[in-house]
Amino acid sequence: MNITDKKVLSFIHSDFEDLEFWYPVLRLTEEGVKVYIAGEKANETYIGKYGVPAVSDIDFNEINPDDYDGLLVPGGWAPDKLRRFPKVLEVVREINRQNKPIGHICHAGWVLISAGIVKGKKVTSTPGIKDDLQNAGATWLDQPVVVDGNIVSSRKPMDLPAYMKAYINLLKE
Amino acid sequence: MNITDKKVLSFIHSDFEDLEFWYPVLRLTEEGVKVYIAGEKANETYIGKYGVPAVSDIDFNEINPDDYDGLLVPGGWAPDKLRRFPKVLEVVREINRQNKPIGHICHAGWVLISAGIVKGKKVTSTPGIKDDLQNAGATWLDQPVVVDGNIVSSRKPMDLPAYMKAYINLLKE
Repeated sequence: MNITDKKVLSFIHSDFEDLEFWYPVLRLTEEGVKVYIAGEKANETYIGKYGVPAVSDIDFNEINPDDYDGLLVPGGWAPDKLRRFPKVLEVVREINRQNKPIGHICHAGWVLISAGIVKGKKVTSTPGIKDDLQNAGATWLDQPVVVDGNIVSSRKPMDLPAYMKAYINLLKE
Repeated sequence: MNITDKKVLSFIHSDFEDLEFWYPVLRLTEEGVKVYIAGEKANETYIGKYGVPAVSDIDFNEINPDDYDGLLVPGGWAPDKLRRFPKVLEVVREINRQNKPIGHICHAGWVLISAGIVKGKKVTSTPGIKDDLQNAGATWLDQPVVVDGNIVSSRKPMDLPAYMKAYINLLKE
């Protein structure tokens, strides 16, 4: 399966980190991947931490994890919202069970913690949630990008080039 | 010369379009290119239209066009500032004379107009400055990306994937 036939899902909610949401979406689009944006509501405009807008394509309840070849969870404050939706956590668990690439950056690790999928995994994140990841059973590393199986993680916006290089490599496998 | 040995200069000023500045900078970094950010002042934090910050590496007067393999001009309101600096226009003209890739997106075409380098060229931009480009002697096309010789142009943030694909292809030549 060629990468240009692949579909990736990105979650969104208010106060996403503007670059951590947009760089991966635009970068995968450049690669020919079709990216679908899922929010609490479909066709809703969400505003990033700094103010950059983004519009959702579908709502969480419309997601069928079988339809996607990978998942992205943006950073910022959106993860604090996202982890409260049982459907979001169910999607994360199912995409993980299917061993498809899951990318999380900065605070996005919170969503994977609540989905219960980080135990025994090597990850990175903003230092702000290092304790939460460790308490959930992950090994935390201070690197621009960490890949452990199907899970790719980065710390901050300036890691985005390394993050997407690793994510795209995994998606191509 | 490998692309990872190349250096690209990006101009910056207040109220740059956040994604139109950051996507190219991060994207070239992902490719292994070293990007230098030049502003009115060095080590100055500039704030994008929506609020995303970016810090300049050098000031305009430090630029030696011979040191760079390409140039990027971001959109937003920054181009309205940038075109007022004689040194900025001199750098645009010299990099163009050396036939190195110049990318401009959205309102960035204003800078190329003031540098006097668009006459007889095919370009695109935000529809807002179509008349200015045509009056300066360019042929304006409504396409996600237009490449004419060493000049690459796009219309808006959602064209960024096509813009950078074309720019990187040119930089690799």
